[in-house]
Amino acid sequence: MGLMSPEQYKESLNDGRVVYYKGEKVKNVVTHPDVSVCVNLMAIDYEMAENPEYRDLAVVEDLETGESISRYYHKPQNAQDLLKAFELIVKATELGDGAIPFSHDIGADTMNAITITANMMGNKDYVERIENFRKELKKKDLATVAAVTDVKGDRMMRPSDPGQAHPDFNVRIVNKNDKGIVVRGAKIHISGAAYCNEILVIPCHAMSEADADYAVAFAVQPNTKGIRQVCRPFTSHISPLDFPNTRPLRVHTDSLIIFDDVLIPWERVFLCGEWKFTGPMVYNFALMHRRTGCAYRIPMTEQFVGAATAIAEYNGVIKASHVKEKLIDLVIYLETLKSLSKSACYDFVMRSGIAVPNPIATNMAKYHFASKYHDMVRIVQDLAGGIVVTAPTYKDFRLPELHDDIDKYLMGNRNISTENRLRMIDLIRWITRSEMENIAIHAEGSPMAERMTIFMEAAKLLKDCQKLAEELAQVKR
Amino acid sequence: MGLMSPEQYKESLNDGRVVYYKGEKVKNVVTHPDVSVCVNLMAIDYEMAENPEYRDLAVVEDLETGESISRYYHKPQNAQDLLKAFELIVKATELGDGAIPFSHDIGADTMNAITITANMMGNKDYVERIENFRKELKKKDLATVAAVTDVKGDRMMRPSDPGQAHPDFNVRIVNKNDKGIVVRGAKIHISGAAYCNEILVIPCHAMSEADADYAVAFAVQPNTKGIRQVCRPFTSHISPLDFPNTRPLRVHTDSLIIFDDVLIPWERVFLCGEWKFTGPMVYNFALMHRRTGCAYRIPMTEQFVGAATAIAEYNGVIKASHVKEKLIDLVIYLETLKSLSKSACYDFVMRSGIAVPNPIATNMAKYHFASKYHDMVRIVQDLAGGIVVTAPTYKDFRLPELHDDIDKYLMGNRNISTENRLRMIDLIRWITRSEMENIAIHAEGSPMAERMTIFMEAAKLLKDCQKLAEELAQVKR
Amino acid sequence: MGLMSPEQYKESLNDGRVVYYKGEKVKNVVTHPDVSVCVNLMAIDYEMAENPEYRDLAVVEDLETGESISRYYHKPQNAQDLLKAFELIVKATELGDGAIPFSHDIGADTMNAITITANMMGNKDYVERIENFRKELKKKDLATVAAVTDVKGDRMMRPSDPGQAHPDFNVRIVNKNDKGIVVRGAKIHISGAAYCNEILVIPCHAMSEADADYAVAFAVQPNTKGIRQVCRPFTSHISPLDFPNTRPLRVHTDSLIIFDDVLIPWERVFLCGEWKFTGPMVYNFALMHRRTGCAYRIPMTEQFVGAATAIAEYNGVIKASHVKEKLIDLVIYLETLKSLSKSACYDFVMRSGIAVPNPIATNMAKYHFASKYHDMVRIVQDLAGGIVVTAPTYKDFRLPELHDDIDKYLMGNRNISTENRLRMIDLIRWITRSEMENIAIHAEGSPMAERMTIFMEAAKLLKDCQKLAEELAQVKR
Amino acid sequence: MGLMSPEQYKESLNDGRVVYYKGEKVKNVVTHPDVSVCVNLMAIDYEMAENPEYRDLAVVEDLETGESISRYYHKPQNAQDLLKAFELIVKATELGDGAIPFSHDIGADTMNAITITANMMGNKDYVERIENFRKELKKKDLATVAAVTDVKGDRMMRPSDPGQAHPDFNVRIVNKNDKGIVVRGAKIHISGAAYCNEILVIPCHAMSEADADYAVAFAVQPNTKGIRQVCRPFTSHISPLDFPNTRPLRVHTDSLIIFDDVLIPWERVFLCGEWKFTGPMVYNFALMHRRTGCAYRIPMTEQFVGAATAIAEYNGVIKASHVKEKLIDLVIYLETLKSLSKSACYDFVMRSGIAVPNPIATNMAKYHFASKYHDMVRIVQDLAGGIVVTAPTYKDFRLPELHDDIDKYLMGNRNISTENRLRMIDLIRWITRSEMENIAIHAEGSPMAERMTIFMEAAKLLKDCQKLAEELAQVKR
Repeated sequence: MGLMSPEQYKESLNDGRVVYYKGEKVKNVVTHPDVSVCVNLMAIDYEMAENPEYRDLAVVEDLETGESISRYYHKPQNAQDLLKAFELIVKATELGDGAIPFSHDIGADTMNAITITANMMGNKDYVERIENFRKELKKKDLATVAAVTDVKGDRMMRPSDPGQAHPDFNVRIVNKNDKGIVVRGAKIHISGAAYCNEILVIPCHAMSEADADYAVAFAVQPNTKGIRQVCRPFTSHISPLDFPNTRPLRVHTDSLIIFDDVLIPWERVFLCGEWKFTGPMVYNFALMHRRTGCAYRIPMTEQFVGAATAIAEYNGVIKASHVKEKLIDLVIYLETLKSLSKSACYDFVMRSGIAVPNPIATNMAKYHFASKYHDMVRIVQDLAGGIVVTAPTYKDFRLPELHDDIDKYLMGNRNISTENRLRMIDLIRWITRSEMENIAIHAEGSPMAERMTIFMEAAKLLKDCQKLAEELAQVKR
Repeated sequence: MGLMSPEQYKESLNDGRVVYYKGEKVKNVVTHPDVSVCVNLMAIDYEMAENPEYRDLAVVEDLETGESISRYYHKPQNAQDLLKAFELIVKATELGDGAIPFSHDIGADTMNAITITANMMGNKDYVERIENFRKELKKKDLATVAAVTDVKGDRMMRPSDPGQAHPDFNVRIVNKNDKGIVVRGAKIHISGAAYCNEILVIPCHAMSEADADYAVAFAVQPNTKGIRQVCRPFTSHISPLDFPNTRPLRVHTDSLIIFDDVLIPWERVFLCGEWKFTGPMVYNFALMHRRTGCAYRIPMTEQFVGAATAIAEYNGVIKASHVKEKLIDLVIYLETLKSLSKSACYDFVMRSGIAVPNPIATNMAKYHFASKYHDMVRIVQDLAGGIVVTAPTYKDFRLPELHDDIDKYLMGNRNISTENRLRMIDLIRWITRSEMENIAIHAEGSPMAERMTIFMEAAKLLKDCQKLAEELAQVKR
Repeated sequence: MGLMSPEQYKESLNDGRVVYYKGEKVKNVVTHPDVSVCVNLMAIDYEMAENPEYRDLAVVEDLETGESISRYYHKPQNAQDLLKAFELIVKATELGDGAIPFSHDIGADTMNAITITANMMGNKDYVERIENFRKELKKKDLATVAAVTDVKGDRMMRPSDPGQAHPDFNVRIVNKNDKGIVVRGAKIHISGAAYCNEILVIPCHAMSEADADYAVAFAVQPNTKGIRQVCRPFTSHISPLDFPNTRPLRVHTDSLIIFDDVLIPWERVFLCGEWKFTGPMVYNFALMHRRTGCAYRIPMTEQFVGAATAIAEYNGVIKASHVKEKLIDLVIYLETLKSLSKSACYDFVMRSGIAVPNPIATNMAKYHFASKYHDMVRIVQDLAGGIVVTAPTYKDFRLPELHDDIDKYLMGNRNISTENRLRMIDLIRWITRSEMENIAIHAEGSPMAERMTIFMEAAKLLKDCQKLAEELAQVKR
Repeated sequence: MGLMSPEQYKESLNDGRVVYYKGEKVKNVVTHPDVSVCVNLMAIDYEMAENPEYRDLAVVEDLETGESISRYYHKPQNAQDLLKAFELIVKATELGDGAIPFSHDIGADTMNAITITANMMGNKDYVERIENFRKELKKKDLATVAAVTDVKGDRMMRPSDPGQAHPDFNVRIVNKNDKGIVVRGAKIHISGAAYCNEILVIPCHAMSEADADYAVAFAVQPNTKGIRQVCRPFTSHISPLDFPNTRPLRVHTDSLIIFDDVLIPWERVFLCGEWKFTGPMVYNFALMHRRTGCAYRIPMTEQFVGAATAIAEYNGVIKASHVKEKLIDLVIYLETLKSLSKSACYDFVMRSGIAVPNPIATNMAKYHFASKYHDMVRIVQDLAGGIVVTAPTYKDFRLPELHDDIDKYLMGNRNISTENRLRMIDLIRWITRSEMENIAIHAEGSPMAERMTIFMEAAKLLKDCQKLAEELAQVKR
């Protein structure tokens, strides 16, 4: 046992799981032409652990057993732990060419949220179960994802509202017996679920008493009876129209997971009707997950900064004052994201023995990223020019009767070959694709979710400041 | 002769023109699986003229001959003419499901710019040539596009700068003889050139004396010897992953046009070395073309407003206050675009007998559209949700073993079927595709171009206001 | 009778009205050192009517009597009427050095709102009364203001909510008898009330049935028994620290009007309990009043544009690219305000025989002005420099031992004298004073009020656009 | 010797310095009715050192002598030192009710910049002189300010450009002899100079070789022969129209300092013609000074947050969703300022033995504050309402015949007295005064200055990111 090798990880996936892709059932995710791309991306985490260059970042000694474990499964204790985990995600995403591998991070965020909640409840059973589960994850180094977002139905009604078309829009407990609980429902947007070892399921919002059956959290393996996944196909980058690029394609796919009366054994159940604790569980998960989100956006943003700088040079406009202004805006965007993310680590708060990133700073960092992302896309597209839409393809470029003319006419700065310019245009087309905009907004919660969290967290600050203003105005209450 | 029928238009295109698409020479654009889609879009203008419902809008009586001609080829004389032409483009774009047909509008803008410039020069030859050309266009109702943007090379150097890698980055006169002129160079981003009857070529920026050879404007037919076009392929909407939709796909393709020492007869030459008049020609073209651009953006924006309203209802969030705020922002964006565009018509200016839309208002309208477009995309994506990226495909939806579950779980508002919700998501994916963002920025000139024009045009305003401020401050100069 | 002269207007004010200013009762507003400044500003409207240069703009022939009347009291019938009235306000404000005279405009807006509402009700009594009142205003050319905003109390409770500290936070009917109605309450922010001839009182928001007693509109003269006004003092411009300026100070003062059981005769009552019509009355008033607001902001904004251009020249930075960018932003702000305001006139709607500016365009114009005003202040202050805060005073400038040094050292552009530069700084300090910011936000309703009106007015647009999107997505409902 | 008491500080100021205020020469700044207000504000720093509550923050043990010295004069060595100094400025500003005392901070920033520059030059004389001067400041605990901004003349010309009206727009060396140098010119915007002990003079921008005479830095006492100061009067808060407030007024005044051929002894000269080192000196000063600026803006911003929260409650609108949105924006503004400022300390860089705040983070923090300040003013004014402009004065409030009515009618939330509401309005009028806007933009350098510094500092980042993008695009250069 111990750390899993990339090969062991891949072998572990051929376990009879039910996964659909483009209307067909996938025989083996590891050998499927599209899903294997995602598997290879997730495997990066396992490769890092074996690579001497990254081992210190990716692997730590377990405080209890002294064994080598993934840093992700270590409970953060201080600012340094948080900063190191942050650095690990940044580096892993760099190795994923801007895509986060996803094999442990969200799972770890969920583990920590469940641990905090179990301790808040003071429920020893839950505390013991989650600690046992953590030990197993550490020992087997399993790939773990989180299934959070329910399909929800009508957003203005509670899960149990009789006005809902049916009661299954949120995952719920339909039965309990001595073996465990039986759950039904569907989770959506679940990145990496088709090629992980464990799925950690938690609610996606706070529940009221009437919704107690929806207050449920558990771990489940993807090949468990009653689980089916439907994946959204990705649009492949490596088109014969693009310039050939030997770097592997790096994308994930997201699952709709259908739970068709799935039995979850008791030792894997971490919440079961305690509706008052859904709020804290979701909240703590969101918090840690948003920190994770900010980390992996840093390499993505560096690609924006880099592509913008490059194309400005290639087009020959790098000295124009409005171009400088645009690059400054990109730098401010990137560096603000870094500063707020690191501040969140420095100003951490302790919750049930776990160091949690500062709630206000974390939410500001994610909100900063999400709310201004489209502005950055605009800048990159503005600098790139209309050629992003109208450039001749690689197929045209290599056609003997056209090659020399395209090579002649599509040069910008004479120090840069036309091929290099068109390659950069290909990259810009790829990094500014619109699905990334949608993900920027919605991954880890929409901008409104972050704003509302900031408001809640700022309650004391608002009160303190009001008191200060009242002293200055000599208001006597 | 007279108005061309859609059939006549299509027949006219099989004329030996040299067009490349995805690395292959196209035999006949009308029968090519992809390019024919564009041909059908361009044909809408000809269909309108035959349709009693739109005939009054699309066709006018020629002031000189009394014959029925396309409204586009009529020289606008007053606000009413400008408003009617505006209305015509809006309607044509509506019929194109948000894509402008493009068969006369940009050509007409170019005609008007050439006419104004010829009159400014007081050059009777040019005036006569362009009037003759206009008569021909009216009589034959030809599909005419404009070729403006040069490939440019290094943007910081003049066309004739010896520092450029070669002198052909801007279309130039390489020879003159008694038959005409010989031109060389390449134009890029030329929408509709592969399936038009006439290409009007003008410079893309003001030229200095050293660049006199680049001061050239002319009309040329696409099948003229020495002309090759390379088209950028479009990404088809009608994917088997999408819900089937019987509305035809509506997209254009843009050409890189290579001029390989092409002979242009004198009667088709409208500028030949008069470098001082390149500025006015480009400027007047940009002005009229930006008005055109604003018109066709109105139906596009209505799609945004409509899709946002629909998906907010389908998701069941239409009553939330932050959703209302987002819809208000969309309405303000749309209505400001309309108001500024119509103001530009009301406050027109006369130039050489042609009513031209108000320069400041027109540029503000285009700048408004372009600089805030990404914000509107963000709003639509925010309201739509992450499902835009993760929704199961139509192939999954119709799979018997998945259909009922997807139908059950992906419902939002119970009054809207899951299919309808997923269809709207398909539409949103389509209208928010990133190439439209790039086009929003760069078509008709980048935001910086509009700002600079506003500055130039505002010289008198700034001076008048300064005088007013000086009177108030009692400054005596 | 007929048009009132400035002298007659002033004489009419010494009528026993009860007005407080800085804690003292004002004997005669016309001779009071501060209030007389406001009286002189209001008199500009009367001066314009006598000035041949402006008479055509300020005076029209009454359609019924053929007599000369103020254009303000003419019922607008078409776009031309609206544009002319718009032009009149712009010109009057120019003559007021950026301050609108206020003697008829808001009164006229209120008259028109009352007329529309009376006709909507189909109440002949009201129609007759308001027509008679209009005749009187035309004949006597009275200075009329509107009293709209109630002091309100707790904003989250209805006027009649028992939770309010008392029932008088909104003006209400406390008694009715055969002579008329008796009203109690207080109105706030009433510009010009201390020096007008008639106050038109209407509700400030829509009332529910429980609030029927608050559904009241009437005309009252400022010297009526039971009316007291408390004016907010203005901060005088002409400080001995500023450079002396022979232009008169132009400012208004606003009143808190207390109605202490005031009897209003029936013929002056225009609404009395018909709560369903409070909405339309307020709404139509707001609409017309926002158009008025946009008009008078144009000369104010021209001062911003002018002062910014001047100080950029005086400081010697007019050629810097970031300075140009700032001037462009100012121009766009001004010209957008003009375009939207004029669009509102062109696209007017008819209501009960009165041409009303387009609701969406008008609200967008006001929202544009208000929501971006602070950005414009920022630009002007940015261009002016820290010297706005730190410049030596006029008193220092004229001190023999300092004069030459200040003159030497505080020069910028050598073609502009130091005195001129410091005069412009004085002007900038004046036009960017913070009370103008507050007024920009709140006068004619806060930005949120405009947004909400746009939303209401856009209901049909949203529905039409949704239908369009559904057709494109082939949604079948 | 050692730390100075507040009394000693005040006594030290009556030294014959030449200061003008409102056109009159000030006899003694300590007893002058207006300037004494500023003196009292500056004395807060000295009071803190004597106050046991703040002593640990304000005073440190000198590393060399072991004596108690002001923390400001200690050379920061690490993040902790920077964070402590940051905390000290925040606290001092809190005690100044939002105004920074200014007695050491800018002086210390200048000292550090001079020290770094002297070491960069490797000039032992300068290193020794500045170390001696630092020892003196430590020992005597002198109040030290910085004189940086020259009056400049035409901003587009270099100081020595013959096109300037005269050569004295920037402070320059007009003579050198064995005693020292003789300087002429004028500095503007010099806060606190009228009531400090030492003025540290440095250039305000990088100089070229032609401007070597302007490359000059030195220390000078305010009573030195040839120095005259002209102060800009402040507008007093404590108006009889406002509600009486027993907290002392807290404001500074800024000087125009005229140097009329002033002799500076050699031991006080720190730069004398070494034009290449003006850039680093200015740059390092700006950097440290911007960190200082961010610190003192925190208590100011807390006043905004507090006043906004209070008035929202007092007006009874705290539950409205758009009010929440506005408070969230204020919180994000404040917390981003804090996060960026603290990040700048954590990510410090070492320069010549001095820990300097991170250049990019510091400039972003200042730019964040300055560029969004007007938006925050807008929010506070929006929440406060028009009553800020129209409220009756305290004089009216206490008039027996008006008191009860004003008290009755101007209540909002019934749990808050009318007096408290009006007091908060007074405070809002004070904190949103327009001079604070001007200061927000221009103090510590205009927004454009911060952007340009970010660009310069980001050169390596841009290059690294470009390299990354080129690897992804497989660009081979």
